Parts: sequence; C-alpha cells; structure tokens
Amino acid sequence: MRDSKSRLARLLRLAGDVRIEFIESAALQKNPLGDPAERPVVAYLPPGYDPQGSRRYPVLYCLHGYTGDAAALVSARPWETNVVQWMDRLVSSRRMPDAILVIVDGFTRLGGSQYVNSIHNGDYATYVIRDVVEHVDATYRTIASEGGRAVLGKSSGGFGALYLSMQYPGVFAAFASHSGDSYFEYAHPRSFPDVHRTLEKHDWNIGAFVARFEGLNKRQAAEYATMEMLGYAAAYSPRSAAAFDLEMPFERLTGELDEKVFDRWLAFDPARMCLQKRAELARLRLRYLDCGRKDEYGLDIGARVMARRFRELGLEVRHEEFDDDHRNVGYRYEISLPALAGVLESQ
Amino acid sequence: MRDSKSRLARLLRLAGDVRIEFIESAALQKNPLGDPAERPVVAYLPPGYDPQGSRRYPVLYCLHGYTGDAAALVSARPWETNVVQWMDRLVSSRRMPDAILVIVDGFTRLGGSQYVNSIHNGDYATYVIRDVVEHVDATYRTIASEGGRAVLGKSSGGFGALYLSMQYPGVFAAFASHSGDSYFEYAHPRSFPDVHRTLEKHDWNIGAFVARFEGLNKRQAAEYATMEMLGYAAAYSPRSAAAFDLEMPFERLTGELDEKVFDRWLAFDPARMCLQKRAELARLRLRYLDCGRKDEYGLDIGARVMARRFRELGLEVRHEEFDDDHRNVGYRYEISLPALAGVLESQ
Amino acid sequence: MRDSKSRLARLLRLAGDVRIEFIESAALQKNPLGDPAERPVVAYLPPGYDPQGSRRYPVLYCLHGYTGDAAALVSARPWETNVVQWMDRLVSSRRMPDAILVIVDGFTRLGGSQYVNSIHNGDYATYVIRDVVEHVDATYRTIASEGGRAVLGKSSGGFGALYLSMQYPGVFAAFASHSGDSYFEYAHPRSFPDVHRTLEKHDWNIGAFVARFEGLNKRQAAEYATMEMLGYAAAYSPRSAAAFDLEMPFERLTGELDEKVFDRWLAFDPARMCLQKRAELARLRLRYLDCGRKDEYGLDIGARVMARRFRELGLEVRHEEFDDDHRNVGYRYEISLPALAGVLESQ
Amino acid sequence: MRDSKSRLARLLRLAGDVRIEFIESAALQKNPLGDPAERPVVAYLPPGYDPQGSRRYPVLYCLHGYTGDAAALVSARPWETNVVQWMDRLVSSRRMPDAILVIVDGFTRLGGSQYVNSIHNGDYATYVIRDVVEHVDATYRTIASEGGRAVLGKSSGGFGALYLSMQYPGVFAAFASHSGDSYFEYAHPRSFPDVHRTLEKHDWNIGAFVARFEGLNKRQAAEYATMEMLGYAAAYSPRSAAAFDLEMPFERLTGELDEKVFDRWLAFDPARMCLQKRAELARLRLRYLDCGRKDEYGLDIGARVMARRFRELGLEVRHEEFDDDHRNVGYRYEISLPALAGVLESQ
Repeated sequence: MRDSKSRLARLLRLAGDVRIEFIESAALQKNPLGDPAERPVVAYLPPGYDPQGSRRYPVLYCLHGYTGDAAALVSARPWETNVVQWMDRLVSSRRMPDAILVIVDGFTRLGGSQYVNSIHNGDYATYVIRDVVEHVDATYRTIASEGGRAVLGKSSGGFGALYLSMQYPGVFAAFASHSGDSYFEYAHPRSFPDVHRTLEKHDWNIGAFVARFEGLNKRQAAEYATMEMLGYAAAYSPRSAAAFDLEMPFERLTGELDEKVFDRWLAFDPARMCLQKRAELARLRLRYLDCGRKDEYGLDIGARVMARRFRELGLEVRHEEFDDDHRNVGYRYEISLPALAGVLESQ
Repeated sequence: MRDSKSRLARLLRLAGDVRIEFIESAALQKNPLGDPAERPVVAYLPPGYDPQGSRRYPVLYCLHGYTGDAAALVSARPWETNVVQWMDRLVSSRRMPDAILVIVDGFTRLGGSQYVNSIHNGDYATYVIRDVVEHVDATYRTIASEGGRAVLGKSSGGFGALYLSMQYPGVFAAFASHSGDSYFEYAHPRSFPDVHRTLEKHDWNIGAFVARFEGLNKRQAAEYATMEMLGYAAAYSPRSAAAFDLEMPFERLTGELDEKVFDRWLAFDPARMCLQKRAELARLRLRYLDCGRKDEYGLDIGARVMARRFRELGLEVRHEEFDDDHRNVGYRYEISLPALAGVLESQ
Repeated sequence: MRDSKSRLARLLRLAGDVRIEFIESAALQKNPLGDPAERPVVAYLPPGYDPQGSRRYPVLYCLHGYTGDAAALVSARPWETNVVQWMDRLVSSRRMPDAILVIVDGFTRLGGSQYVNSIHNGDYATYVIRDVVEHVDATYRTIASEGGRAVLGKSSGGFGALYLSMQYPGVFAAFASHSGDSYFEYAHPRSFPDVHRTLEKHDWNIGAFVARFEGLNKRQAAEYATMEMLGYAAAYSPRSAAAFDLEMPFERLTGELDEKVFDRWLAFDPARMCLQKRAELARLRLRYLDCGRKDEYGLDIGARVMARRFRELGLEVRHEEFDDDHRNVGYRYEISLPALAGVLESQ
Repeated sequence: MRDSKSRLARLLRLAGDVRIEFIESAALQKNPLGDPAERPVVAYLPPGYDPQGSRRYPVLYCLHGYTGDAAALVSARPWETNVVQWMDRLVSSRRMPDAILVIVDGFTRLGGSQYVNSIHNGDYATYVIRDVVEHVDATYRTIASEGGRAVLGKSSGGFGALYLSMQYPGVFAAFASHSGDSYFEYAHPRSFPDVHRTLEKHDWNIGAFVARFEGLNKRQAAEYATMEMLGYAAAYSPRSAAAFDLEMPFERLTGELDEKVFDRWLAFDPARMCLQKRAELARLRLRYLDCGRKDEYGLDIGARVMARRFRELGLEVRHEEFDDDHRNVGYRYEISLPALAGVLESQ
C-alpha cells in the first residue's frame, strides 16, 4: 500500500523508504555548548524491507560534513542526487546489495563536532558509536555486529569515518572517506590569516562573533572560514568546558602559528594518527579513500599520504582520484556505497 | 502529543506542523513533456491548528523559482531559514497572524513551468489555480475564498505570483513578488549569446542537450543559462506540443535577436502585462514588489517600472529595494509573509 | 650602430625601432572636455628602415581600446607580447612584408573617444584621419595613399577601425576589427542597471562621479562600467558641448531603456551602419573581423551579423572565431597584421 | 628646451625625465639559466637635474616583483600611476626631497631572481649591489655612499629590499618593503598542491613545463603558481647549476612537504633571517614595512612578525597596515618614497 511509505520518501521519489527517529543521546546530555541532546536519526530502508520479517541488513552510517546536519543531507534539489537518493538508485537497480543507510547528525553551534569527544562540545564520538548505533540496532532489522557496519562521509564526514574507525575498533568493518580532512599542514593554515583578521575585528570576543554570525542574512567567505576554524578548535584544542574558551593555533598579536596548539590539532590528523593505528586499521575489510585532484584544501595530498602510509604498514587501500574540486562531489557515493556494502555481511 | 507532529516538522524544528500530500492534477495529465501529473502539495500548519476544530485559516501560496521544486523549498541547511521556517518563526512569535502556507510544485524537465499554460509543457496555471487550490480547500481548514488567499514567490516564483494574480482575478487577494522576473529587455537577452553558443555546440539538438545536461555531475554557468532559456521558451514561445519543439528568441545562424519570437516573450512580461490589467490589479488588497539593488538580471529595474506603472494606473504598491543581489534573499519573507497575511481575512 | 635605436625599442627587445613624436592636433584644439590637443604618435619602424633611403612603406594604424591610450599599447610585461612586439616578431621572421605600425592615441577623460567627432569630446575622427595621417606621411617614408594604409584595433579600437573605414572612404584600404564593438543590443544594455545604480548613488552628478573615480586607488566593476557608458554617451549621445552634459540611454527614475537615446547609439553600431555603406566597404581590399566565441559582451554575435550582412551586400569578408573571451586576445595580431600588410602596396 | 627630455618621459607626462641605459653585468655573465647579462637600468631624474651641474642626489632603488621586469615597472595605463609617475608627482609637488629613482631589472626565465645569488640562476644580489650601483654612481650625479641610498619594492621586490639590506650592510641606509614575501609558512605551502598537480601532469619535466608555459596564449592560475614556485626553488633550493635542476619543497609521490627542502626556503625568510641580523638592521636609518590586511598570501602576518621581532631586537620600525589585498597597491609609494628620501642625505 502506497501510503505506508513516508511522505519524505515520496517527496524524494524513492523506491525504498525513509524513517526519521529522534533519540536522546546520553553522551550529549548537558553538553557545555548547549546543543540539543535530542538528535534525529534518519534511516533509509531498501525496497522490501519488512519490520516484521526475518531478514537482517547491513548498515552504512553516513556522516555529514562541516556546516552540515541530518536535515541538510536529506535535502533535495532538482538535477542533484543526495546520498539517500544515490542509495535508493543503486539498491533498486541491483548495483549494490540491499542495505540500510543511516544519517547521523553531528552539528554543533560552531558548525560541527568532527565526531570527536571534546570537553568543550560534548562527547560526539561516544554519541555516534554508542547511542546512535544502539538505537539503530534496536529499531531496525540490522546485522548488529562489526561485520554488518560501515561508516562513510565527505569532508569532515570523511574525517569522522577515518577517526571513528581508528579510535573505536570493533564497531565498523569498513570506511569510506571522500575528500576527508587530512594532512592538516596544507588544509588549515591557509585559512589562519583570514581568521586572525576576523577575530581581531571582533576584539577576540568569540561569543560575540558567533552571535553576530548567526544573525547575519549573508556571510563573507572569511566569516565562514572563521567559524570553521573555531569549530575545529572546539574539537581539537579546547581550553576548557566554558563555551567559546578555545585555544587558537596562532598567536593573537601577530597571527603567526602557535606550534604548541597546532600540534594539538595535528594529533587528530588522520594522516598522522594512522601511523599509530596499524592494528585497528588491519581488522577493517575495506579502507576507501578518494579526493578530487583540484581540492581547494589540498586534501588529495592528504589522501595520497594516507594511502602511502597504509601501504607502508602492509595494508591494502582503495585510493581513487578524480578530476574535480571539493564541492558537490556526491556522485562519488556511486562508487563508495556499493564498495562498502560489498564487503559487509548480508543475508 | 509530540508524535502527532510530522517527522519533517521535527527535523525542521518547527513549532507548527508540515504535511505533504500528493495530488493527481487533471491539468497536467498527459502533458507533452512527460512530467508527472502527480505532484506534492506541502502545507505548513500553524501551532494550534486542529483538523477537527472550527477555526479556518487564510492561506499563502508560495511558488518556487526556476530550478526549484517543492522538495527544494522545504530543504534546510544550518544557519539558513527556509520559507516554512520563516513562517513558523513569524507565527510563533506573533509577528503575523496564524495562516497556512502552501508550497506548490511547478517543476518541469526544462527546469520550471513559469506557472503558465503552455502547449509544450502542460497547463501549469490551471494546475495551480484550480487543482492545487481545490485540494487545499478540501484538505485543510481554509478560508476558501479570494479574501483568504495570497500568492508569493521569488524570481520565477515572483513572476508566477504576478502572472496568476493578473490572469486569474478572483483567486488571490494579494501577491508578493521578490526579485520577480520582469522587464525582460534587461533580464534575458544578456544570456542569449551563451545560449546560442551552447546550442550550436549541440548542433541545435535540444533533446540531446537536455539529456546530456541531466547526466552531468557538474554543469557550467552557460549550460544552466541554456536550460533556463529553454525553459522560458517552453513557457513563452513553444512551436508545437512536440517535446523540445521551441522557438528561440534569436536567429540560429548569427545569434542576433529574433524580434518576432522575443515579442512572444515580452507578451508575458509583467512590466508590460500590467498595462492591460488595471481592473485585475485594482481588486487586490496588496501589491508587494521588492528586489535587491544589485540584482544580476536587472530585476530591480523591472520592479521600478512596475511600481511606476501601477501608480500611473492609480494603484498603490508596496515597493522596496534592499542592498543585495539575486541569490539567497529568503530573509525578505520576513517582510512579505506578515504583509500578505495582514490583509487577508482571518478568524 | 646599436645606439641609433631608441631606448624604448631596446627595452622592448625589438629588432626594429620605435619612435615617439608629439603632434598638436588642430582637430582637438580647445575640445570641450579639456583633454590635451598634444598627442603622442608612436611609430614602429621595421629593421632596415632608413629615413634617408628611397624605399617607402605601407602603414598599419592601430587604435587602442576603451581605457587604453598610446602609452598602454607600448607597455610590456614578461610573457606577454604587445602589438609592437608582434609586429617586430612577424616582420623579423619574414612572416609579413615590411611595414610601419602607427599607434594612435584616442584617450579622453571619460576613457576613450570611440574615434568619432563629438560636440562633447572633440573631433577625434578628424584628428585621426587628417592630423595623424598627415603627420605620419610627413615624418616617415610612407606610401602616402589609400593603397598603402590599413587600420586595425581591438574592442573599441576595432569599432574605430570599422567606423573610420566606413565614414572616411579613401583613407584606408583595409581594416581589421578584433572583438570590435557591434550589435549594441547585446553589448551595452547589460551594463545599464549597474550604471543606473551607480549614477543614482552619485545623485546623477556625472562630474562628481568622474572626479571621484579619478581619485580612487581601486575601482569596482560597476564603477568601470559606469565610466565606460559615460564614454559612449559622450561619443554617441551628447546633449551639448558642456562637459558631462550627456543623454544616457535609460530613464533616470526607473532605469528602463530610453529608446530615443539608445537609437542615437544604434546609429553608430557598425552592424547597422554597414547596411548604408556598401560603396565605402566595397572599395576596401580586406574586411577582417574576428571575435572570441566566449566574448562577455556578445561581440561574436555582432561579428557574425556583420559578416552575414557584408556577404548579403555581395562583399567578401574574412571572419574568424576563436575559443576565448574578450580579454588579452592580442595574439590575434599574429593573424591580422600579415593579412592587412599582405593587401597593401609595398616596395 | 622641451625636446631634451626623453620621449618616454613625455609619454608618461613627467615633469622630470627618464633615462634608460643598458649595462653588461659581470655578475650575470654566462648565468646557467641563459638569461641576458645585458640589462636595462632605468633612472628617473627630477626636474632641474643637470648632468653638468654640481648638485648630487640621493638614490632610491626600486625592485620589481615576481613576473615583473624593468619594462613592466615603467609601463603606464590610464587612471593608474606607476612608481616613476608617483616619484615625479611627489617631487614636483615638493612633498618629498629631490631624488633619483632607479629601476632594477631582476627578471629570469623562471619569472624572477628574488635578487639572491643562486648557482642555478646567477648572482643577482651581486649584480644589484655591485654592478647596478656602480653604474648608477658612474652615470648620474648621485650621493655615492650608503647614506645616499635606499632600496624598496613590492612583493618579491619587498623581499629583495629586505634581503639585500640584511645581507649587504653598507650599501643602503634604508628600506621599504610593501607586501614583501615573508613568513613563508603561510605564504608558500598554500600553493604546493596546485604545483604538485601541475608538475605531475607534465611528468615532472620542468623544462617542458616552462617551454609550454612560455608558448601559451593564456595561462591558468595553477600554471602561474607553478612557475612562481619554480622561480623560488631556483633562488632558494637549486640542486645544481644545470637548468631546471631544482629541489622542490614537496615529495614527488604524494605532494606532502619535504621539510628538508622547505628548510632551505625558510633560511631565506626575512621573518627568520632578521633574528640573525641585528647589527645589519641597526645601522639602517629607516625600516619600513607595510601590507594590506587582506593579503591573499598572509604577508600581513609576516610583516607583523618582523615588526615584532625588530622591536624585540630593540629596533624601531615603521609598520603600517591598510585595507586592501596584494594586488595593485602602488598607491603605497606615496607613503614610502617620501619616507625613504626623508632619511637620506641630500644637498
């Protein structure tokens, strides 16, 4: 019966279905930044999915990028294909095995959590790997074990996929990082002058900057870059749990690099972290990296560095480059979704 | 009870609710271009709306712009506010009277119908003013008369609001056009050289161009402009009901203006049409025009021309200019939604 | 002896020589706008040129574009080739016959004269075809007749080449127009909204706008566009000889087209003028038009229109298109300079 | 008598004069890259300068930026003011003391020498501080001692001014660096991904890249960035005297930083070098730094770092910031030229 399908699924013209549930994350309770602990969990269910049936499905967890959230990932525009639509198209045409896709919401007031536990933001890693995964396994007919789960994302979502795979072995059996944040030496310092100038204009009052930013009708590129670096500082180099109490990776007076703080950032760089995580990486069934060869942040260099290091660790990696920049590369899901589902257990 | 609210409404963090229904439009049955006759109708319902209650509400009909559709208008992004969210914010904070907002879907394979009846596209005007309005009045607790309805939109949606108000008197009591298409002499010829070049590259095979366009991962500005002018030709200057059989407003050999075809376009220009529509305009309770004074298409000139002509016809007009260009001016809904609701009947 | 060559010629690394003379133009005496009547005339002389010798040379007159002047045309930058350097390279490598190249200065305080006689600017057409040509024939060993002269230019210089060829038959035997102004319907109205907005900001005080413009360290695109349209109005639609007393081709209140004034502009459009100038065009030995097929002003359409009209008049035309936009297309001199010299008389 | 003034001076509408001489630099003889050892030396002479007179003048040496040369610095465009024209305007209006301005040519086939001695390029530092200075003192009526000389420049010219002042004490008494290269950590790595991609496309054949670059009609931003980084490598990290045998500061396989090579670059960074050059800096009469606070390369950060370090060394510095980016900031000469001349000896 047609109407058993959600209205959103029909709006997106899906053969399968989309369900939105809301969970109260224990890990995000009373987080210092004051972001909601209630979060949406969006699940794409393939055609034929039967909540009363006996079949169980592998699950792909999709993490949005910086400035994204769950609502943005299910948003649709003519002539564009979002990740849910890609999933539906691939499953419906039998180009990949049936699977559930789950969209995780990791947004914060500073634009994104990077999916890490932070004294400033709250415990977003715990939220994903414990609260969201438990909810999904309790709610849908999943293969509720490592072999039935993969994680993927673009940009900061790709970072999250890498980070969670390395830090929380046993949860996911595979990851795909599209244009994921890495090799921070190229990715981030290029923005520091703009951020330094912007914060100076706001007398280094980060709270005031954020409040003003939120109220603007339109924002300049330097303002976005500033918010972005604040978001990363909140994840990588918080000073305390007090809102906006962050260590920035450059000196206030001159703007030059503060190596001590930037080292805190580099400790999160997947291109470095991987050197310490051979065992965690080795248990994965698929390590997938790609990046456009015109990436504005040089993340293609990061992907190359990781691919080389993986191989030097004796690990296979699927590493692809394509002729594009950082924006609107969702068409790469056409490659990663089948690749991930292909290595997971299925029934 | 919380869960009586739709999941989409919760995802958008609305105080009110959002309902998506699908109708089979008689006007769009077997349309020549092959677009679906089944269309979503999205309705925002204010807090306290009770389908079993006795209260009736005025309705604002919102028309999307070129390349938009209903799904795009309800899409959400952090730090942005879509029209439904504006409506909810304004109603919830009592800055405007309670009202229903309806989002109409007028997309076609060529990117948009302009909400006009066309032998090439189908009868989109009839679809809006008859099929959608009837469905809404039958489904929700509306004030089901002219005095309870207004129409608004941005860009081609603003055009639609103007066009339908002038062509179908008695349906709407007010309109708001944000950066609406008008004064075509400035708006459109600027794109003709690019369109001429693009079509020449495709050997003037419009069907082949469209098919290729749909399959691209990314598109150039000239390709978007070409699709847009094809969309307008399908609305304003179709040659026949055969798909892609269009008269373009420039000559194939040189690209120079074809005045005869461009005159067909100009017949749809609200800045001209208004001169013949005094009576239809006079019965409206509010005529609202605005445009950014940096509009890339010169639509601020069009708004000025219309405002002057309205006044020369003895009609009042609310005409505002603001310091912005054509893109992302959704914050103007903060002005237009209360203004429209303020002149409608309410209970 | 090396030092007989001018220092400028050595700075530009020319095999030939460059001479700069200054003339007092009778036609520009006491011009209303107050621009100097003394003007530089720059002459490139090919290797072997001997002021005492008996040989005479054909002359190519090169007209700069809008915002250009003689000094700008001889300016040099690494990795770029200016018209004098192209001439030298082509002559030195025997890819074209020996010829003199003359650079004409047609700058005004409003950015350019369009090489037409104007009650507002002064008599720039007379200045070129009488004062400059007489000076050149008196100063260098020229073939001092129609058969020994051609005229060329880019953009407004191309316009000038077309205009002077059609209005002053008997002076030049050939012209080359690179991306020359034509088909004003596409070229100019696209700028009118920006110009309208800019002048409104300056309370329609053109003199104040110009003075402010001249004093700025940097200028916005809309400010350049405004100056440009003022320049064209000074050439095509002056109201009187009083400085800055111009008719603009749009209405002050709304910005909409003023057809009456724009018709004054269109009377100068080479794409129209040619229809009345069959005899003048027929006596030319070469009619050369080219334009990039990405020209931002749609001047490729203008070139196509002219080429078609020439052919309809029974006249041959050399018409080429290339894959580029309006800027920095000086490499096209490699085609036009030999083509022009090839049809002129030589010794 | 008017004609005693050079034609170039008249073309530039100078009250003073401009002389171009050519020298054979001993330091550049047989340089490995094959660039000419004959170089132009352009001298601006103030009004009243008399080669037979007894008065002697201080000299300001102006160094062009990367991709510049002497011809480019004397090039003129309407509504723009080049350094010679600034000098003339300031001297003529008595806003600075009479002085000679000398333009030095430091171009190489790779776009610029950075004014350093390099086994790959040749000895450009020696060429400036010995060959050019000796020629100028021998040719013009200069105050031929440290107290009569200053050096200035923009971008790489500012770098040169800083570098030569620190490396060759006793030649210049003051420097001005406008947006000078410094704090390489921000300035250069941002370009490395683009350069890595471009060289990979050319199979790491630098000679082939350069030859192709030189032959192009137009060049992409990534191609310019590549040439620029090759130019810096030729100055800072040549591998040998063989043309194009350079060490690049990133690894060939991945593009990640090669710290060892980048350290060779950093050894030239004025923001580092200054820490070792207290004595050399202390003898200067003026240390002038400025930079736009929107500099695309973050050179404002470099200027701040230097200013702080100078002060920490107990040295005064004139440090200014302004609201602009890196391009077309020649209007800053209005500040620096009088400041430099003001501290030099004069008669």
